Amino acid sequence: MTMESERLAQQLQFILEIDRLKGVLRRSLLLESKRRENSAEHSWHLAMMALVLAEHANESVDLLHTLKLLLIHDIVEIDAGDTYAYDDDSHEGKIDRERTAAIRIFGLLPPDQAAEMTALWEEYEALETPEARFALALDRLMPFFHNYHTGGITWCENRVTRAQVEDRMTPVGQGSHALGDVVAEIVEQAAASGLLPLSWSERPEQI
Amino acid sequence: MTMESERLAQQLQFILEIDRLKGVLRRSLLLESKRRENSAEHSWHLAMMALVLAEHANESVDLLHTLKLLLIHDIVEIDAGDTYAYDDDSHEGKIDRERTAAIRIFGLLPPDQAAEMTALWEEYEALETPEARFALALDRLMPFFHNYHTGGITWCENRVTRAQVEDRMTPVGQGSHALGDVVAEIVEQAAASGLLPLSWSERPEQI
Repeated sequence: MTMESERLAQQLQFILEIDRLKGVLRRSLLLESKRRENSAEHSWHLAMMALVLAEHANESVDLLHTLKLLLIHDIVEIDAGDTYAYDDDSHEGKIDRERTAAIRIFGLLPPDQAAEMTALWEEYEALETPEARFALALDRLMPFFHNYHTGGITWCENRVTRAQVEDRMTPVGQGSHALGDVVAEIVEQAAASGLLPLSWSERPEQI
Repeated sequence: MTMESERLAQQLQFILEIDRLKGVLRRSLLLESKRRENSAEHSWHLAMMALVLAEHANESVDLLHTLKLLLIHDIVEIDAGDTYAYDDDSHEGKIDRERTAAIRIFGLLPPDQAAEMTALWEEYEALETPEARFALALDRLMPFFHNYHTGGITWCENRVTRAQVEDRMTPVGQGSHALGDVVAEIVEQAAASGLLPLSWSERPEQI
């Protein structure tokens, strides 16, 4: 096998491997069918959000770079699994699990591309660039937005409070003031309609 | 409502609407679970292929532009449905159905973005730019590759012949000689193992 075909074979092996991201289920429900969303279709949706909403980023962002961050940011979940936003226990050890996953999965690629993908994933996690901050804002906004439009089912199932959501949504405004305002408005509406109580124990009837 | 918030409201409405692409099912099966693939996760996978395989394009391509084409190319299926590659009947009227869909769905966006998305979709369909040709090569390669790695199930179900596949795969080599060679090699293997016969009527036993 020539060096060139060996390189292409590695790339195709990676392409086949990441098919498994379609089987990683998140807590979020789809708007229509109410089945749980998988991380591959979620990544597509975030990329589309970046295309449409980039003008609302607080800092000027490079769109291609933002898309790369969003397209690859969940690939480590193939090995490490999705970690639910409001499950503190499962966050323990998350970064180690994900780092091991990044080494294995991106390591299927030729070394230069493995290094590039790993650097993108680390950049997303470190939140030190405008693109990473905007990407995180979209990643936080999407499930919130989804959940509100599916009647707050996953908040109810997991007894999530208004304060927890507000805390979790802080990065949205840090990435985009306009989108942060949208979150604040929806939180008000969700609180007013009882979807997001201050405390679940004080809430007399469960949905 | 200010003009600015009206613009953002339109953008968010579009983001919600395209959630439905996750419910458009293709014929292709996933490699592991064997469930049918949906067009949203497929679009993500194509975008990842573009990131990894762009160096193999016959003509130099702008990666951001290629990603845009791939991310939006199937959105019209929300209204028009997926058209199976080897179903000649369903191809009738496809372009009219898809054009009507493009007007409605992209029309949810503010006018400048609606025009940009529509132009991208038309560019993909017209195949007159290097990016559109490379994007089509990836779109043709992916289900072929998937299908081979899931035992040729959809070829068998639909009695697809070697000549049909070779015809369908012509754009792969037109977009990338290296990927065209991969297709030719896999076709040989599929033919040799009986997955892709010259004719299904001459094939004594069905899988």
